[in-house]
Amino acid sequence: MKIEKMGLLIILSGPSGSGKDTVLNELSKQDDDIKISISLTTRPKRDWEIDGVHYYFVAENYFLRKIECNQILEYAVYNGNYYGTPKSIIDQWLANGETVILKIEVQGAQKIREIYPDAVSIFLMPPSMKILKERLFKRESEKNDEIQRRLSIAIDEIKRATEYNYIVVNDLLDYAVSDIRAIIRAERQSSPRLEYLINEVIEND
Amino acid sequence: MKIEKMGLLIILSGPSGSGKDTVLNELSKQDDDIKISISLTTRPKRDWEIDGVHYYFVAENYFLRKIECNQILEYAVYNGNYYGTPKSIIDQWLANGETVILKIEVQGAQKIREIYPDAVSIFLMPPSMKILKERLFKRESEKNDEIQRRLSIAIDEIKRATEYNYIVVNDLLDYAVSDIRAIIRAERQSSPRLEYLINEVIEND
Repeated sequence: MKIEKMGLLIILSGPSGSGKDTVLNELSKQDDDIKISISLTTRPKRDWEIDGVHYYFVAENYFLRKIECNQILEYAVYNGNYYGTPKSIIDQWLANGETVILKIEVQGAQKIREIYPDAVSIFLMPPSMKILKERLFKRESEKNDEIQRRLSIAIDEIKRATEYNYIVVNDLLDYAVSDIRAIIRAERQSSPRLEYLINEVIEND
Repeated sequence: MKIEKMGLLIILSGPSGSGKDTVLNELSKQDDDIKISISLTTRPKRDWEIDGVHYYFVAENYFLRKIECNQILEYAVYNGNYYGTPKSIIDQWLANGETVILKIEVQGAQKIREIYPDAVSIFLMPPSMKILKERLFKRESEKNDEIQRRLSIAIDEIKRATEYNYIVVNDLLDYAVSDIRAIIRAERQSSPRLEYLINEVIEND
C-alpha cells in the first residue's frame, strides 16, 4: 500500500537583521532535501544574481497577471518594483510531499498562516536589541535614521513572537540552524503526518 | 532578570516489544541532562532487567500502600501485574525546569495527559507486526500464548497512536533516538516556553 506523504510548510520570519538569509543559506547547505521558496521580483537583475536562485526576475505585466490570477500569496512594492511570493511552486512542492521553507517579513506571515493553516512557523529572534543594532550598523548599507526606524519596527515585531509555533534565538549560527533542523525533523514525526503508518504497520504481519 | 525555566514532560509509550527500554537506555547515554522516570511494578523481574533501572520491582502489598498514600500518579493492571508511576519525583524535576521522560504503557498514557496537559507524548511504533512478533520471540521470556496475547493487544494500542503528539518508528535504534532528541530540542523552542525571552531581548539594548 502506497500512501502519499504530506508536505510540510515552514514559515521563517523575524525582524530585519535577525539573520533569515544567513540561516537559510546555511540550512540549504546542510540539508539539500529542503526546498526554499524563492520570491518573484520585477526589479532588474544585478550582475551577480542568478535567476531562480536569488529571485525569479519577471516583467511587470507578468507579475500583475499573477496577482490577478491569485498566483501571488502576498506582495509588496519597494522603490517602484514588485516583490512577491509565488503560490503554484509551493503548492506543487507540498503536493509532492516536500519540506518547503518560506522566508517572509513579519507583516506578511499572518497572511501565509491563514492560507496554509497547517504551516509551522518559526520566529527568528535576535539575542538582544544591542546585538541587532550592531548587526544593522555592520551592514553599512543603511543610514542612522533608517537603522533607528528598523529597530523600532523590530521591537513591535519581537512582541509578536508568540504568534509563531517556535522561537529560535539566532546567537550562534550553527546552533540556530540545528534548532531549525530539529524542528523540521520533529514536525515530520507529528502524528497527523504519520497517521497513515498505522494501517501499514498492522497489515504488515 | 532571571525567570524560571519551564520543565518539559515527555510521555514515551508504545506496545510491548516496541523497544521503549532500549530507546531510553540509548537516549540517557547520549543526553545525560534528561531525567528518566522509572515505574514501579509487581511483575516478576526478567533475567536481563535491573531493579531501579528498568523498573522498581516491588511486592503487591507495598504497591497497594503507595496507592493509598496517593504516591502513585497512575497505575494499571496488565496481565495481572500492577504498573505504576511515582508522582513526587516527577513534580520535583519539573519544578526544577528539567526535561523528564516518563515511559508508560499505552493504557496509562491518557491519565498522565490529563494530569499534565502540557506534556508532550510520543508513540513508539514498531516497523511492522512481523518485526514486533520476531522481537517478542527473541525475548524468550514469554510463552507462545502470551506472545499472541501481546500481539493482539499491540494492534489495539497501535490504533491509538494518533492520540499522541508524535509517532516515532523504532526500526533503526539510532534513527529513533535521533528523532526523539529532535522532538525534545524542538519542544524546548516552542513559543509558550520561550515567551519570557521577549522582554529579555527588548530590554537588553
